[in-house]
Amino acid sequence: MPKRVTIDDVARLAEVHKATVSRALNERTRDQVNRDTVERVRLAAQRLGYAPDLMARSLRTRTSMSVGVIIPDLTNPFFPPIVRGIESHLAPRGYSALLANTDSSELVERAVIAALLDRRVDGLIIASGHMGDAALADAHRAGIPAVLVNRAAGGVPYPLITGADVEGVTEAVEHLASLGHRALLHIAGPADISTSTTRSDAFVEACERSGIASAVVEADGLSIEGGLRAMEEWLDREPAPTGVLASNDLIALGVLRSLRRRGLRCPEDVSLVGYNDMPFAEEFSPSLTTVHVPTHDLGATAARMLLNAISSGQQQAETVRLPVRLVVRGSTAPPSTAA
Amino acid sequence: MPKRVTIDDVARLAEVHKATVSRALNERTRDQVNRDTVERVRLAAQRLGYAPDLMARSLRTRTSMSVGVIIPDLTNPFFPPIVRGIESHLAPRGYSALLANTDSSELVERAVIAALLDRRVDGLIIASGHMGDAALADAHRAGIPAVLVNRAAGGVPYPLITGADVEGVTEAVEHLASLGHRALLHIAGPADISTSTTRSDAFVEACERSGIASAVVEADGLSIEGGLRAMEEWLDREPAPTGVLASNDLIALGVLRSLRRRGLRCPEDVSLVGYNDMPFAEEFSPSLTTVHVPTHDLGATAARMLLNAISSGQQQAETVRLPVRLVVRGSTAPPSTAA
Repeated sequence: MPKRVTIDDVARLAEVHKATVSRALNERTRDQVNRDTVERVRLAAQRLGYAPDLMARSLRTRTSMSVGVIIPDLTNPFFPPIVRGIESHLAPRGYSALLANTDSSELVERAVIAALLDRRVDGLIIASGHMGDAALADAHRAGIPAVLVNRAAGGVPYPLITGADVEGVTEAVEHLASLGHRALLHIAGPADISTSTTRSDAFVEACERSGIASAVVEADGLSIEGGLRAMEEWLDREPAPTGVLASNDLIALGVLRSLRRRGLRCPEDVSLVGYNDMPFAEEFSPSLTTVHVPTHDLGATAARMLLNAISSGQQQAETVRLPVRLVVRGSTAPPSTAA
Repeated sequence: MPKRVTIDDVARLAEVHKATVSRALNERTRDQVNRDTVERVRLAAQRLGYAPDLMARSLRTRTSMSVGVIIPDLTNPFFPPIVRGIESHLAPRGYSALLANTDSSELVERAVIAALLDRRVDGLIIASGHMGDAALADAHRAGIPAVLVNRAAGGVPYPLITGADVEGVTEAVEHLASLGHRALLHIAGPADISTSTTRSDAFVEACERSGIASAVVEADGLSIEGGLRAMEEWLDREPAPTGVLASNDLIALGVLRSLRRRGLRCPEDVSLVGYNDMPFAEEFSPSLTTVHVPTHDLGATAARMLLNAISSGQQQAETVRLPVRLVVRGSTAPPSTAA
């Protein structure tokens, strides 16, 4: 590798003291330096290809300028827009994201948190929270700054940024009720995930308010396979419902597979609403009516809340809910028995 | 934060010298220590929650145990499985991945490479390569270890791990020919991306060998919108082809949208083959016949090649091609004019 350019080289070219170079190139101290000088230092640094040694600096300031981002599974298309939202806030502020997948295992979650702290991340953004999350409870007791995104973590008092699930579910139920459906089935996600129970409770209440019958079954995973199994088990012992609300779009895809297997048509025989509006929900067969969650904004807001917590040294167990909206597409229609 | 556990605490509990603790916990020196001792040190470290200070160690050894992963866009579903494949090889070896998106801009690519080097990553895995990639040429001249994944980068002599594109395209063309298609259209990706030109050239050759007519148009992006625009422009001035091969699945989705707009049915009026077998290609309307690329293996192999290059201090401009295979689904059928 070529010899590294030093701060002295930049100071010489910009004709300033090297302490001034340091202040001018550090976002936090930049306003202590005259604007023209900042510009001169910047140009000199750019011409020389000088990059301040973040690692040495981070040892000095005891910050790493990095944030751990913990998600269940990057190949679930719900999460990449959240990660990009996080990066859209971090990158312009000089922070990097270290990404880790837990595959929804608390054992893995505990190991990745340990590995991230080992690397001295300044804080965590956690999309893998679940009820009884002892790994996160330990992190909170140890004073690690963190923000939860989408899912809460049982009683762990970290701030949470999530979607307005009650409103989203209510809008979906009212849409199906207005089409004439008199009884609905909800395929809930696993009960140890906060969004599953919030949506399930909201579903039952919204059906009651709309005066329609409701049933709930629980899928064993927020996945196509989980949705397929839950729907198959229902259809093995009960007549097909005219309308189904799935706890997320992957479960909805599983429901679609189950309907196809049994020769039931969507939406002619069974109307279906998903949740999240994941990428490509519009391309499915039929295109999926679903509740749109602003995933990019969830990520960006989580990153903003975390950097605030890191710089202020304090955070509260507040819950911030971003608005969601129903997107009506081809998978919902009036029930064929209604007329 | 609680007082940090030190190496002395672990040495005391394990009843060994602290140099032994250090050797036992470091993957590179572990085999210098008796196995029972390694196990005793590990248990002691685990009981105390001791994590070796990677950052201080990395300054000492001048490695950061981190790798920069540069992709065009994480929300393109082709890339998350590659990233997970990379992590599946890095994580068990104590390495972390720092992820950066370029949005296919070389300006952004240059900035993220600078930011990653600023953080002293030990090497780069690059999925954003393109022709005339000056940013990568500079990185190569500076001696930065790197591996290209999927796409080459013009003449930059980094090793490349990619799919067997010629074989994949040939299999797709032969499938359409065997169904009875006598003329095919290829919607190519932008010409500055190596996979676009490799697939386009292979398409023309395979059509010639099969004795069928071929035409090629170029989409302005590897995206739904790029595919939609290219297909619309073709249909504005030419009759609909009976068969289309798209350079990737997103372009294929754009072709499907264009066909729907014009009341053309797939596969009855137009057969369509995608490329990559991206997640959910099976759920589309109709389910997409496409060439399956082993994305997870591409990522894992890239990570293995990079760590080898880092540890050996040398790398060659070799190209490794992993096998691909055609997956026949609902979007291809005999042409309706054939009988």
